[in-house]
Amino acid sequence: MAKQLLGKEVVAALNERIIAKAEALKANGVTPTLGIVRVGENESDLSYERGATKRCEKLGVEYKKYLLPADATQEQVLAVIDEVNKDDSIHGVLLFRPLPKHLNQDEIEQALDPAKDVDCMTNGSMAGVFTGKDLGYPPCTPQACMEILDHYGIDCTGKKAVVVGRSLVVGKPAAMMLIKKNATVTVCHTRTVDMPSVVKEADIVIVAAGRAGVVDDSYVRAGQVIIDVGINVNAEGKLCGDVAYDKVEPIVDAITPVPGGVGSVTTSVLIGHVVDAAEKAAARR
Amino acid sequence: MAKQLLGKEVVAALNERIIAKAEALKANGVTPTLGIVRVGENESDLSYERGATKRCEKLGVEYKKYLLPADATQEQVLAVIDEVNKDDSIHGVLLFRPLPKHLNQDEIEQALDPAKDVDCMTNGSMAGVFTGKDLGYPPCTPQACMEILDHYGIDCTGKKAVVVGRSLVVGKPAAMMLIKKNATVTVCHTRTVDMPSVVKEADIVIVAAGRAGVVDDSYVRAGQVIIDVGINVNAEGKLCGDVAYDKVEPIVDAITPVPGGVGSVTTSVLIGHVVDAAEKAAARR
Repeated sequence: MAKQLLGKEVVAALNERIIAKAEALKANGVTPTLGIVRVGENESDLSYERGATKRCEKLGVEYKKYLLPADATQEQVLAVIDEVNKDDSIHGVLLFRPLPKHLNQDEIEQALDPAKDVDCMTNGSMAGVFTGKDLGYPPCTPQACMEILDHYGIDCTGKKAVVVGRSLVVGKPAAMMLIKKNATVTVCHTRTVDMPSVVKEADIVIVAAGRAGVVDDSYVRAGQVIIDVGINVNAEGKLCGDVAYDKVEPIVDAITPVPGGVGSVTTSVLIGHVVDAAEKAAARR
Repeated sequence: MAKQLLGKEVVAALNERIIAKAEALKANGVTPTLGIVRVGENESDLSYERGATKRCEKLGVEYKKYLLPADATQEQVLAVIDEVNKDDSIHGVLLFRPLPKHLNQDEIEQALDPAKDVDCMTNGSMAGVFTGKDLGYPPCTPQACMEILDHYGIDCTGKKAVVVGRSLVVGKPAAMMLIKKNATVTVCHTRTVDMPSVVKEADIVIVAAGRAGVVDDSYVRAGQVIIDVGINVNAEGKLCGDVAYDKVEPIVDAITPVPGGVGSVTTSVLIGHVVDAAEKAAARR
């Protein structure tokens, strides 16, 4: 029986810190505020938005929605980005992506003020993750993985960590964060030969393969910590991760469930970034 | 007896391509030009500068020196950066670093136009290395390692690669470049436990530890390719790498010597970036 690394426990601790910071800011006359920019009515965007606004309300963070039709022009979206950039009352921005295909997404992403880039879409934030400099904010999902490791006191120094996946949203930033935590880090991906034996070497495994049940009992051994970033819907219509939980859980030391693991932490990380951005903006006044 | 991966062979092939491009540009009325910004008279800066200007002359690339005294002010250095940014006849800039301690190096680095950042000092170039987007230029040393692998036809796909060192100048960018080449990449560093066994697992090893002879025969096995980035001076006053060459060379399949390996390729990579920047500038006219 592996120890369950539960998102809700991490979220509870994170929320407590965020609420305290938000209250201190408000006592100081600053209301931390998230700007939500959505183009169209994509169902998964709407679902994430509901979670984010609910979390904002719980944590004492305001939000303001900027809604555009699915056929909005590049100029219209850029005008909204320009508006939030100039609005001192908006501290961080969540822009739902991917944008509709007729838009130039990169141009829109790079137009955002890096100081408000709480979801790591600008090159400035990317450079911050890579260099370790205080530039922008890291992507919320890999940071949620680090929050879980920290919360459960899992020290990475000198440990072998394997990241499965090399995406810009999870795999590569997770690798950089684990290197910063002094782990010896290996990045695996679709071209890796004999991935089970590589993953078995690790003490800590972050799985962001983007495919249900990729990591099964042939990949793991006793003593490992498994963080499952995957969110998939299985044949029975139920949410599941990239790890075959039922096969892996009896073998390893600790594991995040899906749902109830990484995903639930991500929203609090995002709101935490907004509060942090508000603190920085207040300090600049 | 390992195959020697010789910088001069890689340089000869690179130079041929650079000369052809530079000639085509000049026939088109554009003379690719490197701006060299030096503060003070540091001996290792002067030595690198001699190598760079000699290589420029050989490859048909112009250079222009901007020399400042060791006690130059922040404003003076920034004024020079502003001057090269505005000068359309300068396509790339080499700024010797570290700058004297009284200067704010980061502010100066970030002031350079990313389009002229041929030595990867801006956050824009860093983001490019991390994201794989066409932003700025990667650092010359890890790119020189990749040029060596390419020149000798060493395919990285599916291979295990280990990078020893996690610096921003070599280790981390080398890891990103190897991931892009489809290797399964592990980054080791001073906090890695049992580094010999980790390095022994690799098919390709890039050593950028920054200490003479760190990697000895206990780290290697038959079949490996070893790229030695180190440049150190040993007790006898001779140049040597981070790999104990005499102990390692008889065991592995291929190895770069020091001197005569990576270091000699770096300068041509830099000049290649200048020519590339000149091509892009010409295309924008």
